[in-house]
Amino acid sequence: MHMKKTLTSTLLFLSTISFGQTTEDSIFIRKIYDFALTSGQCYEVLTHLCTQIGPRLSGSKGADQAVKYMQSVMLQQKFDKVQLQEVLVPHWERGNLCEVKVNANSSSKMLSACALGGSVGGNIKDAQVVEIKQFDELEKLGEAGIKGKIVFFSRPMEPTHIHTFEAYGGCVEQRWGGAAKAAKYGAIASLTRSMSLKEDKFPHTGSMSYDSLYAKIPAIAISTEDATWLSKNIAKKQNLSISIQLNCQTLPDTMSHNVIGDLVGNTLPNEILLTGGHLDAWDNGQGAHDDGAGCVQSMEALRILKSLGYTPNRTIRAVLFMNEENGLRGGKKYAEIAANSNQKHVLAIESDRGGFTPRGFYIDSDEEDVLKIKKYKSLLEPYGLHDFKKGGGGADISPLKKQGTLCLGYIPDSQRYFDVHHASSDVIENVNKRELELGAASIAAILYLIDKYGLN
Amino acid sequence: MHMKKTLTSTLLFLSTISFGQTTEDSIFIRKIYDFALTSGQCYEVLTHLCTQIGPRLSGSKGADQAVKYMQSVMLQQKFDKVQLQEVLVPHWERGNLCEVKVNANSSSKMLSACALGGSVGGNIKDAQVVEIKQFDELEKLGEAGIKGKIVFFSRPMEPTHIHTFEAYGGCVEQRWGGAAKAAKYGAIASLTRSMSLKEDKFPHTGSMSYDSLYAKIPAIAISTEDATWLSKNIAKKQNLSISIQLNCQTLPDTMSHNVIGDLVGNTLPNEILLTGGHLDAWDNGQGAHDDGAGCVQSMEALRILKSLGYTPNRTIRAVLFMNEENGLRGGKKYAEIAANSNQKHVLAIESDRGGFTPRGFYIDSDEEDVLKIKKYKSLLEPYGLHDFKKGGGGADISPLKKQGTLCLGYIPDSQRYFDVHHASSDVIENVNKRELELGAASIAAILYLIDKYGLN
Repeated sequence: MHMKKTLTSTLLFLSTISFGQTTEDSIFIRKIYDFALTSGQCYEVLTHLCTQIGPRLSGSKGADQAVKYMQSVMLQQKFDKVQLQEVLVPHWERGNLCEVKVNANSSSKMLSACALGGSVGGNIKDAQVVEIKQFDELEKLGEAGIKGKIVFFSRPMEPTHIHTFEAYGGCVEQRWGGAAKAAKYGAIASLTRSMSLKEDKFPHTGSMSYDSLYAKIPAIAISTEDATWLSKNIAKKQNLSISIQLNCQTLPDTMSHNVIGDLVGNTLPNEILLTGGHLDAWDNGQGAHDDGAGCVQSMEALRILKSLGYTPNRTIRAVLFMNEENGLRGGKKYAEIAANSNQKHVLAIESDRGGFTPRGFYIDSDEEDVLKIKKYKSLLEPYGLHDFKKGGGGADISPLKKQGTLCLGYIPDSQRYFDVHHASSDVIENVNKRELELGAASIAAILYLIDKYGLN
Repeated sequence: MHMKKTLTSTLLFLSTISFGQTTEDSIFIRKIYDFALTSGQCYEVLTHLCTQIGPRLSGSKGADQAVKYMQSVMLQQKFDKVQLQEVLVPHWERGNLCEVKVNANSSSKMLSACALGGSVGGNIKDAQVVEIKQFDELEKLGEAGIKGKIVFFSRPMEPTHIHTFEAYGGCVEQRWGGAAKAAKYGAIASLTRSMSLKEDKFPHTGSMSYDSLYAKIPAIAISTEDATWLSKNIAKKQNLSISIQLNCQTLPDTMSHNVIGDLVGNTLPNEILLTGGHLDAWDNGQGAHDDGAGCVQSMEALRILKSLGYTPNRTIRAVLFMNEENGLRGGKKYAEIAANSNQKHVLAIESDRGGFTPRGFYIDSDEEDVLKIKKYKSLLEPYGLHDFKKGGGGADISPLKKQGTLCLGYIPDSQRYFDVHHASSDVIENVNKRELELGAASIAAILYLIDKYGLN
């Protein structure tokens, strides 16, 4: 039954081949997807990572355990070469307390809140709050309107963007830079509406930064539901005050590792085709979509090619970067070492947009390079990949760009990503096994094509 | 912020226009999606339908309540005309008991099971079981191998199909026809592996049929996990016996209704552009994806066009069909009445593949008609719709085909559909609001284009 069906599918797909590629490619790519969907291990590895290790922010015990576990899986999967690459990473801890209490007249309400990554701790009693939608409002209000107050950044993600990353891009400055901007005018803390398109009770963490010229003030995310509630109550001009307690802290930098596994190239071993994700994950969920998914898909892409007996011309490498979330130290360190090696990084792919159903690849380069990748579109369309366009590769691989590496970003469907991104709902139960496997197969397929044909 | 963003998006999308359509269309379609994503009501209506009414199999109180509720929503949304259309429907009840107990040597195990829709009740004690993967094995075994036994249909859905409906199509005969085929050789009950690609504990119900020449025997679905377990234990050649108790029954036919809402056409009111889903849903879940989603999307498509001030040339109609799941009486009755009216059904669209992220439309016709729809592809690609191809429209609208109606099937992403299809996990929590809204907008957009340009 299985074989008959597969043959039918293969024959069906042959009709979609166009310029350049061969029937052989079409058949091999069909085998890649068949293998991923029938003999996949990536969901199992991700389940272990999520449920047996879980949170793994840089510097934490979980991060250490994740490094060791993923290294052991690569060894078990018999990659030609497995190595750890030392990276010194920041070590921030959330602590066990983050309370945001709103007092309105005689009643009070605890908000669903979490510290942003990098925030200082603090203890604030009954401060006034001022709501800001755009940064330029801060300047208008000035010290007179802000000093001694808590600033609440409430701009919601814009729902009309079809690609939700654009909505994220239009708001994330509030999380990253809000506290620093507010501190400039004497604010004593910042609250930011969570970066999510869904109205719910989950606060979403994420990195933030301070400006060395101004005070470091507590920076907190509140759930979208509570942000909407707070906006409404501020609009009612009730006499609100807010108390905050949180005990996060930054500890000394800690030694950690990128995890690297290779299928060594047969004819051009010093030309590297890299595929990666980041192994660190925020401490409030399991880092299932962000970015356990990208890590296991990268490893799975190699395992698929190896299992199908493919002999790569170039070295195909999976890299699990450490510290994407709050420092990018892994990506920077990796590129630094690569620059000083005798290896040429021809291509780098990153999967860091979740383990959802495949849509295509972004090409982080000019129109000429876009066309080099787009010529493979007809081979991948039967698997749901239609988007081959200019766009970001990924944070971890971006430092490789100046070495002339062509960077690609794997694009899964984006509708559900920010529902769980950086929240306690980023757990294995919200990952669909088939969607994850289809992503791994898509990455394996593009690696195969570029290994075979080069970047011409 | 909102307006500025929307303008940018609109300008971006203008570049994708090709032959025939105008900038006006591109802008209007952008408005459709903007409205759906910012002022959508379909998720709210679906939430009420799922949580306040829930199960609504034909003939049940839930079905009656659903008819009244959806009619009231159409009236509230001020459609030009709202009507109920009488349909006599079957009335089957699951009862409160469905036990499947496997005895193996000294131990026993209760399977996660549910009656298939239409099954008779029964009480079977310690019968032997025979496993069948393909129907032709039944003939080989014959009465000698089957009589007095329970037949277990265990063929799993084939995971290598990218479109999961193909995997369903390759297996569903076991559910629909297994009991009748087994009864022919004297089987006393049938167990069928649930129609799902996921290994889990949910039994999936669905309709089945008997053959009037042979006995009506109990027909039951068991969860994929338990089906895998049972296969393994049968393979071990342990001395298995199975006991079954279930008390479902078929009651007399009951009067029910299709729910119909119109935006009356301005210049060609007797030409109908229909969009629909089915209002009945299996009794074990909430019918969220199957097919509450299709119902609310159809109504929402009309509401969007009306809210944007669009004056249709033709009559645009939402039809919520009754009894798709176990009889198709609503679809048949609707087509019968349509054939005898002075109205010409130009187009019918069905959304009955779940409320997931949009992928495109199937065209249930020849290549010429495919091209008529495909010319709108460039206008819909920016919203993730790439698949415009020959394929099934939908069960409810299929009886309209012989009147010359062009039938389209809305295609959402299919990866997660069979995880919840006909199971108790088909609940509102598994529907993503944006994905649902994007589907409603996609249907509104194609209705707008076909109303404006006709089927040329």
